[in-house]
Amino acid sequence: RKAKTVDMSSGNSAERGQILDGASIAKSIRSKLKEEIVELKTKFPTFSPGLAVVQVGNREDSNIYIRNKLKFSKEVGIEAKHVKLSTTATQAELVSALERLNGDPSVDGFILQLPLDSSEPIDADFCTSRIDPAKDIDGLNFWNAGKLSRGHLKDVLIPCTPKGCIELINRTGCTNMEGKVAVVIGRSKIVGSPMKDLLINCNATVIVCHSKTENLPEKVKMADILVVAARQPLMVKGDWLKPGAIVIDVGMNSIPDATKAKGRRLVGDVDFESCKPIASWITPVPGGVGPMTIAMLLQNALECAKHRLKKQSQFTWSMRCLPLDLMDPVPSDIEIARGQTPKPIKELAEELNILPSEIDFYGSKKAKVSLSLLSRLHNVSNGKYVVVTGITPTPLGEGKSTTTIGLCQALGAHLKKNVFACVRQPSQGPTFGIKGGAAGGGYSQIIPMEDFNLHLTGDIHAITAANNLLAAAIDARMFHEASQTDKALFNRLVPLQKGERKFSPIQIKRLKKLGIEEINPKKLKTEEIKLFSRLDIDSSTITWQRVMDTNDRFLRKITIGQSPTERNLTRETQFDIAVASEIMAVLALTTSMADMKERLGRMVVASSKAGVPVTADDLGVTGALAVLMKDAIRPNLMQTLEGTPVFVHAGPFANIAHGNSSILADKIGLKLVGKDGFVVTEAGFGADIGMEKFFDIKCRSSGLVPDCVVLVATVRALKMHGGGPKVTAGQPLAAEYTSENVQLVESGCANLIKHIENAQLFGMPVVVAINRFTTDTEEELRTVQMKAKEAGALDVVICNHWAEGGAGAVGLAEAVERACKGHDSTQFNFLYDLHLSIEEKMEVIAKKVYGADGIEILPEARKKIDLYTKQGFDNLPICMAKTHLSLSHDPELKGRPTGFVVPIRDIRSSVGAGFLYPLLGTMSTMPGLPTRPCFFDIDIDPDTEEIHGLF
Amino acid sequence: RKAKTVDMSSGNSAERGQILDGASIAKSIRSKLKEEIVELKTKFPTFSPGLAVVQVGNREDSNIYIRNKLKFSKEVGIEAKHVKLSTTATQAELVSALERLNGDPSVDGFILQLPLDSSEPIDADFCTSRIDPAKDIDGLNFWNAGKLSRGHLKDVLIPCTPKGCIELINRTGCTNMEGKVAVVIGRSKIVGSPMKDLLINCNATVIVCHSKTENLPEKVKMADILVVAARQPLMVKGDWLKPGAIVIDVGMNSIPDATKAKGRRLVGDVDFESCKPIASWITPVPGGVGPMTIAMLLQNALECAKHRLKKQSQFTWSMRCLPLDLMDPVPSDIEIARGQTPKPIKELAEELNILPSEIDFYGSKKAKVSLSLLSRLHNVSNGKYVVVTGITPTPLGEGKSTTTIGLCQALGAHLKKNVFACVRQPSQGPTFGIKGGAAGGGYSQIIPMEDFNLHLTGDIHAITAANNLLAAAIDARMFHEASQTDKALFNRLVPLQKGERKFSPIQIKRLKKLGIEEINPKKLKTEEIKLFSRLDIDSSTITWQRVMDTNDRFLRKITIGQSPTERNLTRETQFDIAVASEIMAVLALTTSMADMKERLGRMVVASSKAGVPVTADDLGVTGALAVLMKDAIRPNLMQTLEGTPVFVHAGPFANIAHGNSSILADKIGLKLVGKDGFVVTEAGFGADIGMEKFFDIKCRSSGLVPDCVVLVATVRALKMHGGGPKVTAGQPLAAEYTSENVQLVESGCANLIKHIENAQLFGMPVVVAINRFTTDTEEELRTVQMKAKEAGALDVVICNHWAEGGAGAVGLAEAVERACKGHDSTQFNFLYDLHLSIEEKMEVIAKKVYGADGIEILPEARKKIDLYTKQGFDNLPICMAKTHLSLSHDPELKGRPTGFVVPIRDIRSSVGAGFLYPLLGTMSTMPGLPTRPCFFDIDIDPDTEEIHGLF
Repeated sequence: RKAKTVDMSSGNSAERGQILDGASIAKSIRSKLKEEIVELKTKFPTFSPGLAVVQVGNREDSNIYIRNKLKFSKEVGIEAKHVKLSTTATQAELVSALERLNGDPSVDGFILQLPLDSSEPIDADFCTSRIDPAKDIDGLNFWNAGKLSRGHLKDVLIPCTPKGCIELINRTGCTNMEGKVAVVIGRSKIVGSPMKDLLINCNATVIVCHSKTENLPEKVKMADILVVAARQPLMVKGDWLKPGAIVIDVGMNSIPDATKAKGRRLVGDVDFESCKPIASWITPVPGGVGPMTIAMLLQNALECAKHRLKKQSQFTWSMRCLPLDLMDPVPSDIEIARGQTPKPIKELAEELNILPSEIDFYGSKKAKVSLSLLSRLHNVSNGKYVVVTGITPTPLGEGKSTTTIGLCQALGAHLKKNVFACVRQPSQGPTFGIKGGAAGGGYSQIIPMEDFNLHLTGDIHAITAANNLLAAAIDARMFHEASQTDKALFNRLVPLQKGERKFSPIQIKRLKKLGIEEINPKKLKTEEIKLFSRLDIDSSTITWQRVMDTNDRFLRKITIGQSPTERNLTRETQFDIAVASEIMAVLALTTSMADMKERLGRMVVASSKAGVPVTADDLGVTGALAVLMKDAIRPNLMQTLEGTPVFVHAGPFANIAHGNSSILADKIGLKLVGKDGFVVTEAGFGADIGMEKFFDIKCRSSGLVPDCVVLVATVRALKMHGGGPKVTAGQPLAAEYTSENVQLVESGCANLIKHIENAQLFGMPVVVAINRFTTDTEEELRTVQMKAKEAGALDVVICNHWAEGGAGAVGLAEAVERACKGHDSTQFNFLYDLHLSIEEKMEVIAKKVYGADGIEILPEARKKIDLYTKQGFDNLPICMAKTHLSLSHDPELKGRPTGFVVPIRDIRSSVGAGFLYPLLGTMSTMPGLPTRPCFFDIDIDPDTEEIHGLF
Repeated sequence: RKAKTVDMSSGNSAERGQILDGASIAKSIRSKLKEEIVELKTKFPTFSPGLAVVQVGNREDSNIYIRNKLKFSKEVGIEAKHVKLSTTATQAELVSALERLNGDPSVDGFILQLPLDSSEPIDADFCTSRIDPAKDIDGLNFWNAGKLSRGHLKDVLIPCTPKGCIELINRTGCTNMEGKVAVVIGRSKIVGSPMKDLLINCNATVIVCHSKTENLPEKVKMADILVVAARQPLMVKGDWLKPGAIVIDVGMNSIPDATKAKGRRLVGDVDFESCKPIASWITPVPGGVGPMTIAMLLQNALECAKHRLKKQSQFTWSMRCLPLDLMDPVPSDIEIARGQTPKPIKELAEELNILPSEIDFYGSKKAKVSLSLLSRLHNVSNGKYVVVTGITPTPLGEGKSTTTIGLCQALGAHLKKNVFACVRQPSQGPTFGIKGGAAGGGYSQIIPMEDFNLHLTGDIHAITAANNLLAAAIDARMFHEASQTDKALFNRLVPLQKGERKFSPIQIKRLKKLGIEEINPKKLKTEEIKLFSRLDIDSSTITWQRVMDTNDRFLRKITIGQSPTERNLTRETQFDIAVASEIMAVLALTTSMADMKERLGRMVVASSKAGVPVTADDLGVTGALAVLMKDAIRPNLMQTLEGTPVFVHAGPFANIAHGNSSILADKIGLKLVGKDGFVVTEAGFGADIGMEKFFDIKCRSSGLVPDCVVLVATVRALKMHGGGPKVTAGQPLAAEYTSENVQLVESGCANLIKHIENAQLFGMPVVVAINRFTTDTEEELRTVQMKAKEAGALDVVICNHWAEGGAGAVGLAEAVERACKGHDSTQFNFLYDLHLSIEEKMEVIAKKVYGADGIEILPEARKKIDLYTKQGFDNLPICMAKTHLSLSHDPELKGRPTGFVVPIRDIRSSVGAGFLYPLLGTMSTMPGLPTRPCFFDIDIDPDTEEIHGLF
């Protein structure tokens, strides 16, 4: 019996007995979904909607439903997963499975197939309530139910059956239910209850009937629209109906029918035969509501997937910025920092669209982000990449960090741009000695400063542990080699285990390096055994030092191995401060876990007596080092005083290393901010050092092309360069610095001009940021502006972020935005080619960047040039270990020195990090404590846990 | 016009025109609430319900409502707080305020007063959705709305006005609405929508009408119960009503009325005059629904407070235990550990009823808990306190840790008791050398083992940092004292700051110690300046060593200060492994932040040349040490393989220190498990050492009284004690150990018996746990059981938790439960009195616990006895540094040795930790790396980040 089917174009027809053909409507919906998915996949190649169905047990009816859901998912292009738990699954196991799906980025939405079929007691409501509301495509989570029932239909997932019923009603042409009476029979949480909510929301007057309702036919008689979900076969009769009613039958009952092959047939809650002539439209059973339910499930899943897509490609963060309560005079850094309540870091992470699976919280104020972000956001265009550097500073520092933070606060909290600040993690040692803050200052700071300046998330401790394990391995290996025969050594290095000797993978790596093809320990020749087992380290060549994150001057030179247990194998060595470890430079320059392992493995710690470099790989310790560094490799998320995001990650020395924060933080930041956002990163020391290394070492390693240089200058430093009296930390400034002296400023601008020119050497646009002090006069500031503009600075902006926070750097932020917009990335170039000789590379830097006449290579350096060239390390970039207090190698030469020759005392290598570092002077790698270290003032209140005296 | 008021006792009266006097009903509800609160406060003295009202701006109507809410709160005994934000408050500020209240344990429930009055754009729905559903006493959070609308009335907060309406309807005597028709006019989220949900839930047939409803009087006519919330003054007329209807008028409209003084009067949505004669019951306006709303708000607040009270006093955790998938043969530890997915640590914390403000998560698998738990749970009775110890072990260890974990898995996952395992954090050094796992083994482990064995949350790193800061301070101070005059030294120690010199608090502490009353630096006499400024450390007396968490044998004896910058102030010293630091012992023994600061300050690092002890306080570094330790003091929460909770906290050496995990972890655990729960803590080495120190040092310091000793024995160790061949790590066991030998077992039981007797010395019941190996025979096991019973063990249980997890230790768990139940805590006593002399205390331990004939004091020890007695440290408890491989001082003497005299070689002090430690042999405090350390096998997969080779 084939009745009329729906005419999609029909209006509100008064014709009777029309059949609402759910099956064909569902089919057309599915084909629309399929089209839409194809279109989206074309536009977004990585778009791949996914759903999952969780089943407990093995009910036959559930199996059929699920099979259909999976089939139709596939049909429309949705990846569908079936998670099936056994009939003995416990509630705990089910919840685990649901939570895995909550965190699974490949699943946009999922359902728990009901009823459950388990021998264990399981509370189904408890379990559905554990489904993430944003993935709850059955709409059964209380959060979604609450939104629906209170009429908030934005971002809500609606249960599939009632949603399908509304769709069917609409298809009759009834799209406006105002003034209509809708009767819902049934109040189940899956159908009746959400159904009435939807109808109320459609402006129908709704009558909710159920098993306790008296005189049901009387109520049904009022219905213009009738939805029946009563689980009573054939309950509603034709004479109950108001003529012309739309009848939606959700029932699905199996009743005995001797005429059927199986002896049963499916019927609805409505007596179709008697109702059809009275109703205007009526759904058949089967083929009415049923097929719609699955179509709506797919629609919900696609909605979730589109939502995720939108969120991923929606790069304007909706960020809660923290208001500043500016005070004049500006209070101390710690007072300002403590006066601000940071956002929960979880909130910040959500604002940045970081997925829960991509972040680990360390308390409520800091977190580590996963490198997997890089693959997820692989297709996203990078944001603009800004480096903050400075002119040659006074010993007091000129506010690069403060400017970095202030600029980010301006871009983020005031211009509402996506912006990340990427800064270095400071050593904990100086915190307790003589401290120069590294978290910015005034109203431009990173908070909480206690966390920033103390352990943070333990990265430096991890570096210390890794560094010292390697150091211990060197001495222990020499000790064991000294006391054992080749054979004994070999037998211990490749021990019998269950009667067999086997090389470990890292030992096989060593065999390969030695050119030994054989990997069966039994088959090695005597000479090969010796070659393999003896690193034969020449102790006078050991360059690997132990480290400690403490200012401990008495460890600058020590003798170790004096206990009788070490059999007189004493040697002189030293401790460095932890951040001087090559592992810190490796962390800063690495681009992935695999790359870090490579770098750690190739770190050279000494030479053998035959002059062969001995590496961490040779010592067999690489894997352990990587394991110790597995958390440290993930950047740390913190925030500024105004609530914009900051990555704190790595903090290598700026002389013996390259002095820049990590590539990984910059890379992840550039993806997170998206095409129109900004990453502001800071380079250590003056532009002659930090910026040069940023370009030639860091950018060379990362492949990233920066868009703009911000060059920080102060009137104070310019006066010094113009010939002002010496500036010494801890001593009062001379009068020249506190009263107007335009002449000094003008001559001092020579230093500024040279740094501008240096940036231009790399093809970069320069914005000069004058970090304003209260004693600066208008005339002095104007002089700087004029001189810098003449030298080719794109913009010269007076900034007051120390006193005003981001508001004081809005002008700078706008200038940076302009500079980035105008920058053509093809103009960027490195200063030198790696294929030049070590000597040539050093000469290029000295002449072009420092303004020297040339370089002079002293004997120790000459020896190293020969050694490194022989060892094949001559193609590494150069990392000059030079004073930051002058453009030259001599800290006393201020301004723009000329006519000098740079002496190269010695050269060292950081092969793992990937550079050679010539020493142009004596670099202290272990600070000391003064007579009265600042720890005398540091304390913690045992009740409030408030920290005093930090800074 | 005074009409009839409600007769509370009346049934469903058919009488017309009765007035539902909301004001008086509300009053009676309030007085009932008041009575209930008084009663609860009597029963639970700390019970103090609290609510808060958040207001934005200054609307006059809001001010009146809030004033009433606060007044009535006070009246019934609820603390009420008014949080008022200015009219310029932003959404961000409002959300911050709401989240503070979410986390405020003194606020049980709160509301956001609507409408908001702000010049800023604020989304009120977004804000109310940020209120914790459990504190949402207005019931407006979507979670609560969803539960209500889907008929889940358990643990749901219902909006106050509809809740009050239902209460009013019930008061008419209409408590059963089955078969009744209820008409609700209005669908607002505050009244209409939740009203219809409640009526449906009361089994009424509900008609929802609203502004779009046609022919409203026709619908109203059907109503047995009519609730009007339409915001239409006097809309419902008498002739609309079904005679005898109950009419609830939620409207509150101000209309012009010339007859009134203010020219206006308040009316409802119902025309009271025409309706009253037709209705059976009708609410007046004002005085109807209005007063009920506030009463319901108070009722909701009290419900929340009672819920919290119940949760706090409900000590049977509802814990999701993790099922084990037992395999035979038992796979490797790492395979088992990796095969189990830990619960999110957040879930575990919630199960333990830890408040969000009391926990900081470190990633998703570990967390630190706050010491503030101790004050919140101050009134809770402690659980049972169980210590796990062992017989004298073989060098292979006999499974104390495994038994500790297995026992907790049995108590928690199988007997469903509240139970905490408290274990020590292992040093990271041995992880890379030769490893003995410390996370348990087989199916009784702590997970994830990578976190447990590596950095964890950085506590040991913090100890290293603090220890080495103190060490650096010692040498730096000697250096500066050596090169400066008294005056120069003083001027640097008390520097001019803004023209003034001022002592810091810690310097004033030193002045006090020196007996100098003067605290004005200018007024100190020359001699006092010298006394204050010079610590005058005798470098030969320095006992403070640097530490490193690495096995670095070459640091066992070193010479420091050899750099020319240190002017030949070289000296010999050593590095210890970090866990040997006294600061570790301090951490393990401290009871609060204030106590830790005290202990750190009094740590003695050397003597002055005059023989006066020099402390951390004298060096001025105490505050800095405490700051470095501020996070380390909080215990770390982890879990077992079966998902029961574990505290990992502190791990002092068991010879030179007391070898027990922290007092704070035990104390917090004892509160969290509650009266009927268990804390199982482990004591290092055999019972002669770890258990003795647990009682005499740890319990003395904590004041806690244990309930039961679990003594772990193995057939293997007993055979060794019975005269079996030597057992050596890394070498195969002799045949005696792998085949039956009852004779050896029987003689070996002498050792077990002595340990049982030792426990009894302290008045403790003993349960012997035989950690079963597959080679043990029934006869051997029976022998042990018999012997132990004879010696007075309360129970002797064969355990198989290594192979079966908690299921294998259920018998042990039941025995422990019985032992605890039977234990009388007054029977516990210390072994010795602190007032005995150092010599007497050592003698008591040697004779009573070790079974020695006496002690022999060697010259160095004699000198120290004199020194410590002179310095006043002779009243400290004694921490014997003895071998764990024998009951005697000689590791070769197995079984139960007799006839020996214990030599006391030397004595050292840990004054901060609070004990003296006599040295009975050479104790290595710095392990070394073997020829092939296990780091050769350790690696990380760069893609999956899976760690290999750990163990």
